[in-house]
Amino acid sequence: MNNIARAKVAPEPRDNENPHLGNAHFELAIGTRTMNLTLGLRRAARLRGNAAALSFEGRHQSWSTLEERCAKLGAALRNLGVVANDRVSILARNSDRYVEYYFATLWCGGVFAPLNYRWAEPEMNACLNDCKPRVLLVDRDFSGLAKTLQKTNPTIQHVIFADDGDAPTGLLNYEQLLLDSYPMTDAMRGYDDLACLFYTSGATGQSKGVMLTHTNLVMNVMNTLSGYGYTEDSVGLLAGPLFHLATGARVFTATFAMSRQVVLRQFDTLQALRTIERERVTTTQLIPTMAKMLLDEPEFTNHDLSCLEVLSYGGSPMPEMVLRRLLQALPNVRILQSYGMTETSPVVTCLPPSRHVLSGPLAGKLRTAGRVVTNVELRIIDDNGAEVASDTVGEILVRGPSVSKGYWNQPELTAQALRGGWLHTGDMERLDKDGYLTVVDRKKDMIISGGENVYSTEVEDTIYRHPDVFECVVFGVPHEKWGESVHAIVVAKPDRTLDVQTVLDHCRGQIAGYKCPRSVDIRDTVLPKSGTNKIDKAGLRKLYVRGS
Amino acid sequence: MNNIARAKVAPEPRDNENPHLGNAHFELAIGTRTMNLTLGLRRAARLRGNAAALSFEGRHQSWSTLEERCAKLGAALRNLGVVANDRVSILARNSDRYVEYYFATLWCGGVFAPLNYRWAEPEMNACLNDCKPRVLLVDRDFSGLAKTLQKTNPTIQHVIFADDGDAPTGLLNYEQLLLDSYPMTDAMRGYDDLACLFYTSGATGQSKGVMLTHTNLVMNVMNTLSGYGYTEDSVGLLAGPLFHLATGARVFTATFAMSRQVVLRQFDTLQALRTIERERVTTTQLIPTMAKMLLDEPEFTNHDLSCLEVLSYGGSPMPEMVLRRLLQALPNVRILQSYGMTETSPVVTCLPPSRHVLSGPLAGKLRTAGRVVTNVELRIIDDNGAEVASDTVGEILVRGPSVSKGYWNQPELTAQALRGGWLHTGDMERLDKDGYLTVVDRKKDMIISGGENVYSTEVEDTIYRHPDVFECVVFGVPHEKWGESVHAIVVAKPDRTLDVQTVLDHCRGQIAGYKCPRSVDIRDTVLPKSGTNKIDKAGLRKLYVRGS
Repeated sequence: MNNIARAKVAPEPRDNENPHLGNAHFELAIGTRTMNLTLGLRRAARLRGNAAALSFEGRHQSWSTLEERCAKLGAALRNLGVVANDRVSILARNSDRYVEYYFATLWCGGVFAPLNYRWAEPEMNACLNDCKPRVLLVDRDFSGLAKTLQKTNPTIQHVIFADDGDAPTGLLNYEQLLLDSYPMTDAMRGYDDLACLFYTSGATGQSKGVMLTHTNLVMNVMNTLSGYGYTEDSVGLLAGPLFHLATGARVFTATFAMSRQVVLRQFDTLQALRTIERERVTTTQLIPTMAKMLLDEPEFTNHDLSCLEVLSYGGSPMPEMVLRRLLQALPNVRILQSYGMTETSPVVTCLPPSRHVLSGPLAGKLRTAGRVVTNVELRIIDDNGAEVASDTVGEILVRGPSVSKGYWNQPELTAQALRGGWLHTGDMERLDKDGYLTVVDRKKDMIISGGENVYSTEVEDTIYRHPDVFECVVFGVPHEKWGESVHAIVVAKPDRTLDVQTVLDHCRGQIAGYKCPRSVDIRDTVLPKSGTNKIDKAGLRKLYVRGS
Repeated sequence: MNNIARAKVAPEPRDNENPHLGNAHFELAIGTRTMNLTLGLRRAARLRGNAAALSFEGRHQSWSTLEERCAKLGAALRNLGVVANDRVSILARNSDRYVEYYFATLWCGGVFAPLNYRWAEPEMNACLNDCKPRVLLVDRDFSGLAKTLQKTNPTIQHVIFADDGDAPTGLLNYEQLLLDSYPMTDAMRGYDDLACLFYTSGATGQSKGVMLTHTNLVMNVMNTLSGYGYTEDSVGLLAGPLFHLATGARVFTATFAMSRQVVLRQFDTLQALRTIERERVTTTQLIPTMAKMLLDEPEFTNHDLSCLEVLSYGGSPMPEMVLRRLLQALPNVRILQSYGMTETSPVVTCLPPSRHVLSGPLAGKLRTAGRVVTNVELRIIDDNGAEVASDTVGEILVRGPSVSKGYWNQPELTAQALRGGWLHTGDMERLDKDGYLTVVDRKKDMIISGGENVYSTEVEDTIYRHPDVFECVVFGVPHEKWGESVHAIVVAKPDRTLDVQTVLDHCRGQIAGYKCPRSVDIRDTVLPKSGTNKIDKAGLRKLYVRGS
């Protein structure tokens, strides 16, 4: 048992005890410097102290309790040596404690840097070696691994067991730390200070820590407060993994809206349907793969989902067929799409519910990702860096207060990505004359075959339109003559069969000949997914490129 | 004619021509540093270029035109010597050019610092001597005065005639400057950079320049975008003077919402009613005095105000009787109240339409100013600086990213006002257990009589409840025995009469004896108003205090 952890933190003077106190910390925290993510928690605790804030597997807590627990965990972290800008990592499935970990780390002035639990051990080590956290939190599933990781990463001075029950030997008990701590005053980090690191794994396999500041994330909150269904009366479901910003950012939006949040340990179609029904969830967010899994769930129609008011999706373009099924299955739900990335905190554009219609004057934008949200600017450029005309595909650049200040420990990559003051996203897109964005492809996923650009998502979309297709993925494989040729992997629905010729015949006539797959693999098992439940296109392609 | 002004500004390279350009300016403008007020204008011009942006006395312009004119006026200002952080002032009634002046000054990196045209010349000189603008804009009404002001304030190098027709000798012609200029690239000032100075005249008579940054005002925009009725389909009326932040801040909210704005040259009840009807105004903002003037206008019922959807008020508490009349006269309008001040950019709290009801479960908060908006924190303290319990009156402190960084040229006053990281507002208020704020009085307007605190607004509210009262004001006058005694000035409605005894009898029984006026003046002329159309309590009191 760690003695430091058991000693109670001396109570810092609450700043409300002496507002005239002119210490150095307060001198800094004036005006815009008081923009911070913890303001949302303090405000909710003051205005709606007794209202439910967080629910997890039947355990509920109010905003006052949440604030108090975060202020205590913050004190415990401080006591374990976490000072301004120190990283604190977590390796765990979703839980209410995961949300507390976010806020407590910020509360004591630290930087939260969650680990993707789907990573292999070398990937985890690479991340830990990059962000060098002082403290690591784990749940039951990862407590064994934590000890191994700590050995390889000696900067981790303490491991906290953030789960129910007794902590394994050598790990600190989360609830005991809370019992042993007085709530500390918020360290009032904010503004341009680093709030978190979210690691994204690029196609190159090298994981990059995206630095997001308090201002970055507050601005994303303000861009998404209206329209995403978060109000004091709403109930949000955190369905995706909290190590990913797409879900993580919602924690802050919901908190600033003072809306109750329900945490799902891990996405599972039946669990999700049951939780929506039981907790009367009004708003949630899915990635297209998750939406499709829900729709394909035989139990789907046996659940009362009438409580659902808003459903947002993003993370990747939604195949049109999936969207149509969704509109049919949930006719009263307002559906909206977000497009964004970790580097943009994350929301860049939004297609509102009013545009999710199949007919009428507002129709016709359904296949776009919508327009930029309030505080974002974008621009589409060609290979020479010149801005392109409407309806022309090019790389999208993003600018605005929610854009990351760069990659942790990677000044050169940062300078490259942010050259000219704009984030170079690597996404190939086009804008129509009304400013609606169409996500065409990742620049790296674009296939160049015989000098022609083939956007893999367009080919996938076409294949998905075949009624017997369950899943598919399209990428380029090396080809002597054309440089690359279009390859597809297709999985049929459980009760259907498909062959190569059927797929080829289906594509021909729908898209140009050079876009049609030159080779097709029919598989009878579902395709491997990445940590965020997207089909692992990069991983699959690697197998083919190596074997070519 | 000024040669400098006639020379065309050399076109700066548009940053979209070479996004790889790594000049010093762009190096700074990364991530959160790209938070600026001009983003809203650029975004509106890109997404809704052809849509109407601004209307003034039958003259309309689109978002593209507005952006282009601002980029040209910005170039002209730059050519006149305005560089980063330089102040540009204006002395004019409202117009479309006033809005262009805001954006053009920011566009070229300057700081806009408008003058209150109701000030006496010495007050104008004091302000100009404080902010030392390089350029002054004037309209026809003030072009004569401008020359006098320029003589006293030699820092003013150029005066621009921002009106229709020929410029008087020695003044630059606004439209000619635009014709002579190429649009410049936005200077991309933002973040913590100063955006404007708004001068507030305290009770002491000394005018203070409140420094507001880009972040301050962007955060106010984000706090007021939702709920205030600004959407792409709405039409906002700028009814108050643009030299005051209450109206000025709406320019930015409407711009970020891409909502059309109609500018009223000067508030006049008939003009306001006609403009609302003609331009199909959907949202506007009034201070209680203006609301009362509208209701008292005999023509009120002859106008079709059915287009009005949202009416917000603020600036001072609304007497309950006026609010009730408003609710009766405009039953379909959503009414909301804001409370704030220049130092807070300005909105601190908001009472939403759902709480503007006289019965039902949501009633009972009508006399409060609502709860803090999304990014604001507040605290109420006693004379010892300790936080008070619910329902106890104390001074309100405000913290958050919309709080000013201080007063221009006044480091000591700034340190005093922002001590402990909180803005000390000087307002006496109380919070109920649900977090609803009641504005009790200005600290300086609080009367201390015989050791008891008397809040002047409470006494005014009581007097206003008498059906024959048109206007009233209450303040403390020196008294040998009690320190101060309560004095009231009352004006009867045109067709009614009032006497001192009637007022005293009316008050007695409704409020405690020590709160009842000890002396009453009945006047038969309307009370003098300050520059923002509020009854000039400070000015009136001065007459009595001097004469006592």
